[in-house]
Order: sequence, then C-alpha cells, then structure tokens
Amino acid sequence: MADYRKMWEELGMDLETHDQLCEVLPQAFGDVYLSQENRPESMDYYNMVVADIHGIRPAELVAAQKTGTKVFGTFCVYVPDEVIVASGAIATGLCGGSQFWVPGGEKVLPTNTCPLIKASVGARLDATCPFFRIADMYIGETTCDGKKKAWEILGEDVPIHVMDLPQMKRAKDIKAWEDEILTLKDVVEKETGNTVTFESLKDSIELINNKRRALERLYNLRKNENVPISGRDVLLISQIAFYDDPGRFTQMTNKLCDELEKRVQDGVSVCQSGDKRIMITGTPMAVPNWKLHQIIETTGGIVVCEETCTGTRYFEHLVDENSNTFEGQVEALAERYMNINCACFTPNEGRIEDILRLAKEYKVDGIIDVNLKFCNLYDTEGYLVERGMREANIPVLGIETDYTDSDASQLRTRIGAFMEMLR
Amino acid sequence: MADYRKMWEELGMDLETHDQLCEVLPQAFGDVYLSQENRPESMDYYNMVVADIHGIRPAELVAAQKTGTKVFGTFCVYVPDEVIVASGAIATGLCGGSQFWVPGGEKVLPTNTCPLIKASVGARLDATCPFFRIADMYIGETTCDGKKKAWEILGEDVPIHVMDLPQMKRAKDIKAWEDEILTLKDVVEKETGNTVTFESLKDSIELINNKRRALERLYNLRKNENVPISGRDVLLISQIAFYDDPGRFTQMTNKLCDELEKRVQDGVSVCQSGDKRIMITGTPMAVPNWKLHQIIETTGGIVVCEETCTGTRYFEHLVDENSNTFEGQVEALAERYMNINCACFTPNEGRIEDILRLAKEYKVDGIIDVNLKFCNLYDTEGYLVERGMREANIPVLGIETDYTDSDASQLRTRIGAFMEMLR
Repeated sequence: MADYRKMWEELGMDLETHDQLCEVLPQAFGDVYLSQENRPESMDYYNMVVADIHGIRPAELVAAQKTGTKVFGTFCVYVPDEVIVASGAIATGLCGGSQFWVPGGEKVLPTNTCPLIKASVGARLDATCPFFRIADMYIGETTCDGKKKAWEILGEDVPIHVMDLPQMKRAKDIKAWEDEILTLKDVVEKETGNTVTFESLKDSIELINNKRRALERLYNLRKNENVPISGRDVLLISQIAFYDDPGRFTQMTNKLCDELEKRVQDGVSVCQSGDKRIMITGTPMAVPNWKLHQIIETTGGIVVCEETCTGTRYFEHLVDENSNTFEGQVEALAERYMNINCACFTPNEGRIEDILRLAKEYKVDGIIDVNLKFCNLYDTEGYLVERGMREANIPVLGIETDYTDSDASQLRTRIGAFMEMLR
Repeated sequence: MADYRKMWEELGMDLETHDQLCEVLPQAFGDVYLSQENRPESMDYYNMVVADIHGIRPAELVAAQKTGTKVFGTFCVYVPDEVIVASGAIATGLCGGSQFWVPGGEKVLPTNTCPLIKASVGARLDATCPFFRIADMYIGETTCDGKKKAWEILGEDVPIHVMDLPQMKRAKDIKAWEDEILTLKDVVEKETGNTVTFESLKDSIELINNKRRALERLYNLRKNENVPISGRDVLLISQIAFYDDPGRFTQMTNKLCDELEKRVQDGVSVCQSGDKRIMITGTPMAVPNWKLHQIIETTGGIVVCEETCTGTRYFEHLVDENSNTFEGQVEALAERYMNINCACFTPNEGRIEDILRLAKEYKVDGIIDVNLKFCNLYDTEGYLVERGMREANIPVLGIETDYTDSDASQLRTRIGAFMEMLR
C-alpha cells in the first residue's frame, strides 16, 4: 500500500484521528467482503479501490487539481454530474457512511438528524476524509430539512452552491429544475473558467449514461434465478460509482458483467438453494455502510435489488441523447432527474409503483424497507410503502437503523424471523 | 355553558374520547390563566372563547356552513387567509397543541415527528376536535418534511390542497409563490363557487391587515417598562387569532389595547420589580400549549415577545393596500408572506436580524430559544441563533420540549437557573 500521509497532511487532515479510521476499515471490509465465498474475480478492482479508499482516488483528484481541474463534491442523486463534467471538472459523491464521523457532526447539528448528514458534516469539520478536503466546492440541494439547514453550517467552512429541488412534479416544477440546472452551469463555469458547450454536454451525457447502462446491466443480471453476485458486492460497486472516474468505472463494471454473464450461462450462483430473494427499499447506504446487507446475506437471504439512492434511483432512466440544441439538452437533463422518485416529493405515488414493478422484475420473496434514523421523509412514506406492499401480498419488514452496531443483534433476530416467515 | 353534544355528534366526533379532553382543559386553563393576579378585564372575551373552545366558534362555523359558506383549515402562517376570505369562505387555523392528540397521530406517523404534526393528524383521525371535522378542505404547505408527508396521509381522509412554498427567497421564488397564490385562488373559487375579485381581495387584505395592526398594537404595549399584560395572556390571544372571526377579534383586541394603554398611563404592571424580560424564539405554540410561558412566568420572568409563528411571524409586515390591479394585489401578498423568516428557508439570515432587532425593541434581558422536539429546521437553525445571540452578548437558553409534562420540573430547574443568571 502506498504511503499517502504526505498528501493527507497537505490536505490539512487530522492525521491522528484519521489513523483510527484507517485501522478499523480493513477489518470491517474483510469481515463483510473478503469472507464471502465464490466471489467474481472481477471484484478485484473494487476491492483495490476500497482497500485504498482514502489513497488511490484522492491522489488522482489531487493530481488533476494540480493541472487546474476543479473538483465538485455532491450529496444527492438529483445533482446532474453531466453539467459538472461538461465544464471539465470532476464530480465526486461525498456522503458519509460511517459512525466514525457522526460525533463530529453532532457538535454542530441536532442529535435528531440522520446519521448520513451528521457523518458528512463531521467528516468535513473534523478533517478526517480526504474527499471532503479535496473538493473545491460543494453542491448541495434542498431535498430534506436536515441537509437544507446543514449547508448553512457547512457553508461557513467550504464554498457551497445549493440547488433548490422542487417539492412536486408538476410541469412548472420540471421547468424550475431546468432553471436550477442552468444556474449550476453558471456556477461551475465561473469556478472552472471553462464554458459548458453543446458538445461538451453531449459528451458528458453519453459518459454518465454509459455508467447508468453498465449499472443497469449489472442489476439485470441479478434478476436471474442463479444470482451471480452478492448484494453486498453490488452495493459496494454502487457506492464506488459515486466517486470513481466514470469512464473507468463503466469499463470495469462492464468487464465484471461479462464475467457474470458467463456465470449465468454456467449456472454459477453465489447463493444457496432456499436463500430468499430480498429487495431493500428506502434510504441510501453510503460507503462504508454495509450493515444491513451483511445481516441479510448471513441469515438466509440474498439481496437482489436496492430501491435506494445507492441502487435503482441512481441509474434508472437515461438522459435523452438526441437533443439537437443546448436548451434541449438541459430540458432532457431536467426531465431525467425529475423522473427519480424520492420521498422528498409530495405526493410520490410513483415510488410505490416503482417498488411493485421492481419486486416483479427481480422476483423478490420479500422486501425490507429500511429507514436511516431521523429521516422523516422515508419514515413517513414507509407507512404508505408497507401498506402498498401488504395490499399486493408482498411480505415486507420495516426497519429503522443508524450507523452504530448497537442494534445489530436485534436486527439479526428480526431479519432472521422475517426470513423464516418467507419459507 | 351551552350543550354542544348534538353538534359534535353530527360532526361525526368520537364523543366519549372527546369528553376526556373536555374534562382536563378547564383545569389546565384555570391553573395557567385564572390563577393570574391583576389581569386586564378585557381578557374576559378570550376567557370565554377558550372556555367554550369546542363550542362557540365551531357553532358559528357550522351555522355559516348551513348558509353555504365554506370553511378552509390551515396550518401555517404562509397560507394567505386573504384569498380564502375573498372567496366568501372562512379560514381557520387547525394546528394541534395538546398531547391528547399525539398518540392518534403516532398511529400513522413516525414517533420522530414533531408533536404539532402528530397532534394535528391525531385530532383529525381520532375525530376529537370539531374544527378538524368542520373544515370542508385543508390547505397544506411544504414548509417542512413532516408536514409535507403528513398531507399525503391526511389527504386520504379529507380534501387537501398543498401549496409549494419555495425554499429560498430569490426574485424567482417570490414569483413562484405568487403563482401558488393564484392556484390557491382557483382552488377556493372552485370549492366555494364564488369569484375572488379585486374588490373582495381589497376588502380581505384590509380585514387581515387590521388584525395584524391590532396584534402589533398589543405587542407594542409590551415594550413598556411596566408590562401591562402577561406573556401567557398574549400567547392565548395570538392562538385565538388563528381561528376567531377576524373582524370581531380585531375589535376585541383593540378594546383590550385601550385598557392596556390606560394601564401604561397609570403605571399598572403585571410583573414584579426584578422580573426578567424574556423573549421566546423558535417553534410555534398551538392552543392549548401554554407550558413554557407558564414556567417562565412563575420563575421570575415575564415573556415580553414571541418570535414565533404564534407571535411576531404571524403579524409583522402588512400587505400593501395600494395595489390598483388584481395582479398587483397578488404580488403584494406574495411579497408580504415571503417576508416572514421561517427556518424552512435556506439561508435564513433575516431571522437572526429579526431576533436582534426584537431583543432591542422589547428590551429583553434574555432569550429562550425553544424547539418542538423533532423539528429539525428550528433545531439546526438554533445553533446559528444561539451563536448570534452570544456574539451580541444577549443571554440565551436553548430548550427542546414536547407536549408532555414529563420534562416540566427539569425545565423549571433550567429556566430558574437561567433567571438567576440574569440577575
């Protein structure tokens, strides 16, 4: 493993505290990932990326910055990477997925805030994540009360531009999102000194669409009766998708899919007969949050789909590539992104329809609807989701959890009982 | 006291459960209000209104409905009563302020939802509040995650129209709110069968402005060194302002102000020398939530100002009455309402400026920043508010509470210590 301490130091990181994080991650990764049997060989790439998660990619970003490239940090699947990339900049997801960062966030945020937000703020303010240090500018959005207000506090420490996501999906709201995308364009142009052109946007739309296509290909392979890859592995890949170089990520994921297709042909499966096919719905799982997948896949289940922001909400729907004008491209972007069904919208019936459709496509035996503690949006909508599933006779288990391990054994018991019920 | 049981029955209320509420309210009101010494005589009107809170005004609303008048229930100071009144309908505030209704809300909403929302949903679904039964239609808004999602569940039980409040205050956002106001106009016109005209809107703007003027007059009287009215009493008046007939309310409040002006002239004060002048900032206090005022005013404090939705945010800023066109009126409405500084906006620096200004105007000795449990917006902003006050050398105490009495003695201790510190 290369020594990245000098880079971390130059990034103004708190090395001592960061060392503590570096000490625990390999163990956690080993327990959840390397312990799996029969993993696809092409997972080697993702293993490497995660093994040096605070080294390899940060070093690439720092190298790019030295040649004048700007890096934008994002926190939400509604923020269009295409616009950032089209300005010659790099977009990197910044959501924090470890309890390690939560206390840092709680210094300035209410305890009753979801762990993802607390961890993200803590990772920045405690200077214990290189990605949070590297980003020249953050792009926030108004998707929930917690994030909306957290930007005000984060904004005192790092430049941040906030996009105002509409709360409904009427025609005028899609227009309003178009306008927000145009404002983002102005912001990234100003920050990078580059112009977003029809050509550069055309290229970036294709680039990001190709990433979506690769993820869709990967997800489609999970629809097979012989599931060729574990849910844990796909979750890891989805998490990496947020911060890896998009071109390389697409290439590596397609390479993996080649191997998985061979597996399907050969009847190779990662699960045992009798394993229950589980879909997870609800809140996102930022890296290194692997808790729920790990529990499910060690209690007789296999996760075959995630209807989350680190799942289908990230890659479903392509941006129309056939626009002949810049205005048409921006319109296509707005339409694609406003097609995502997040609980931040009211109403959000489309999400129930999505889940019913996915349950059928992935032939799921049961659904685990997970809520990150204090996410009021998904928690409230969970009432409607669970009711909708019961009406459709799809077994569903509602779970609330956070980043700590304190509820792991209780979750194991509840999920184990749910698996039994599915038999 | 008149017998309203027949009316309640016809409203489809759960009489048995409602009886339990009716049994406890008089005691609570007696303890907090009637125990006060030296109250203004003109408080008799408000005493009467509250003593028969589920009788007198509901009976008026039912009588109005029998002559074809529609009643709209609202939950937020951003919803413009003017538009509703201009359609010949009645607007009535519906926010629930009692723990009594909370368990009913928790049947369908997450426990981690603020008590105001849970109580409001519970009051409707449990059929234990006549106002919630009477309203022909509810007008919701997207001011917070909790309410935004609660409308979806409430909307299955009662017709509801949701106004999408922008999350920022740029010029285009004020335009967007204008558009939402126009949509509200269409909705109330359809529901009432009446047209909102320039003339009817002119009248309603004056009517509601006059209510604001009366409240401002009342609040201004509290700026005197000899405070002529308790904070509890003003809170009660503010709460009643949300559902009383606006014309009568204005008249009675001006009558009270006449008496209070006399008191000021005569040097009559409700507080003892040494009482500390306290401003409350933060979340609203819906009727019958009198908890914090009661504690403050029985531990050596007098509440002289509330920077809350049941305080200055309700009445400050008038709608411009000089518009010559309907479009101008709607623009004036949008501008006035978007002038309110709620924590739902990002950023919301205007609110800190408001608090600093009010602290000076009302010559406050200290600020108690109160947050209704699980209100992430005011809780997060509280960090900035408290910091801002410390920077201005204004003593501030941050408190989080709900509708239960379980924290009353702890609050009493903390607030008592704060009062001591102010000496």
